[in-house]
Amino acid sequence: MAQSRRVEVAERILSANELVAERVRAALDRAGVFSVNLTASPGAGKTSLVEQTVRGMSGRLRLAVVDGDLATSLDADRAAAAGAQALQVNTGGQCHLDAAMIEAALAQLDLAAIDLLLVENVGNLVCPASFVLGTHCSVLVASVPEGDDKPYKYPPAYRGVDVLILNKIDLLPYVDFRMDYFRRGVEILNSGLRTFAMSCRTGEGVEAWLEWLAAAAVDHRAARGAG
Amino acid sequence: MAQSRRVEVAERILSANELVAERVRAALDRAGVFSVNLTASPGAGKTSLVEQTVRGMSGRLRLAVVDGDLATSLDADRAAAAGAQALQVNTGGQCHLDAAMIEAALAQLDLAAIDLLLVENVGNLVCPASFVLGTHCSVLVASVPEGDDKPYKYPPAYRGVDVLILNKIDLLPYVDFRMDYFRRGVEILNSGLRTFAMSCRTGEGVEAWLEWLAAAAVDHRAARGAG
Repeated sequence: MAQSRRVEVAERILSANELVAERVRAALDRAGVFSVNLTASPGAGKTSLVEQTVRGMSGRLRLAVVDGDLATSLDADRAAAAGAQALQVNTGGQCHLDAAMIEAALAQLDLAAIDLLLVENVGNLVCPASFVLGTHCSVLVASVPEGDDKPYKYPPAYRGVDVLILNKIDLLPYVDFRMDYFRRGVEILNSGLRTFAMSCRTGEGVEAWLEWLAAAAVDHRAARGAG
Repeated sequence: MAQSRRVEVAERILSANELVAERVRAALDRAGVFSVNLTASPGAGKTSLVEQTVRGMSGRLRLAVVDGDLATSLDADRAAAAGAQALQVNTGGQCHLDAAMIEAALAQLDLAAIDLLLVENVGNLVCPASFVLGTHCSVLVASVPEGDDKPYKYPPAYRGVDVLILNKIDLLPYVDFRMDYFRRGVEILNSGLRTFAMSCRTGEGVEAWLEWLAAAAVDHRAARGAG
């Protein structure tokens, strides 16, 4: 008896986040906004990717950024400096964003004025994988200096995503990173995963990502009849 | 009423881990074993530090390693290959080690045969900071390519530790890392924090850490009268 009651509670907690995520998705769809959930280890380069994306989309698409962090508004400041409508969510120590935080953030954004929403999750390769936000596309940012064994050691982070970005490829000559071993690990967990290799620092490889993202946002808006 | 009951439960959960941590500490002290909790982002170089430490302590101190990971035994395999008594703890997806996992691991180790225990926590800069393990010394491994803003963005990880290792200094020429800005962030959170800058890849700076660690272990054993 006690055990079955415990299972019930766990299910109710999970559904609460999923319920809010459905409302977030509906609000984004009504506005014709395509949305991306960026997850990564601390320091993989999520914020640099946001900066490159905001600058690269200038004149193509209108962007907003929601930045999740334990503390400070450093990331949102960088996104705003790059030219985006930017909002900081401080989680107060919580290790992941949840759908309720995104719903609260949306209430402060002018959704009619944007085409694309980038959500930068808390830097954490474990916990964010368990919390859907209602976004359309999950993007994992990996980076070369983290090492080629990360898919094997953090399978849930790789299993659930739609796009993989391998950042900091400019450091490949200076570290021991076996590209074949890394790709094999990714393939086992997420076969055929769309992958963009790039360096946000040098700009190499960024344009292919921008083109794919812009096309995905335009397709989404067209499918919703809001374009 | 409902609210005060909720607080009570939270306190009980916290105390349960701390209670087990006290038992872990007592068992280690009885055996005269000095113990270190290594925390870091994924890919900062905890396992490389363990390898360097196991090899460097050969002939000086007898070591065991407990490796925490979501999945695989890759880290324990590397520690064993370097010559340590090594035990893998798979957390089954949990984002941190807790004291009960360490207590279970100790039951499988021959404490009388070791002087030093290295615990490699799950790669996560957020959650492990909230769970004491009963170890004597908390060591945070940061790395240069993660960026100089990490103390500002992950304050709990820096605030609670006894030693900071800044790894991958061989990459300093290839990334934008302002050492002054990094050190200022650390100083605000943890004034006077003992810091070792090194590269586990090239071996630069490792010896200073080994000397400090060996002295700490010997002092601990002498203080316990077990040496």
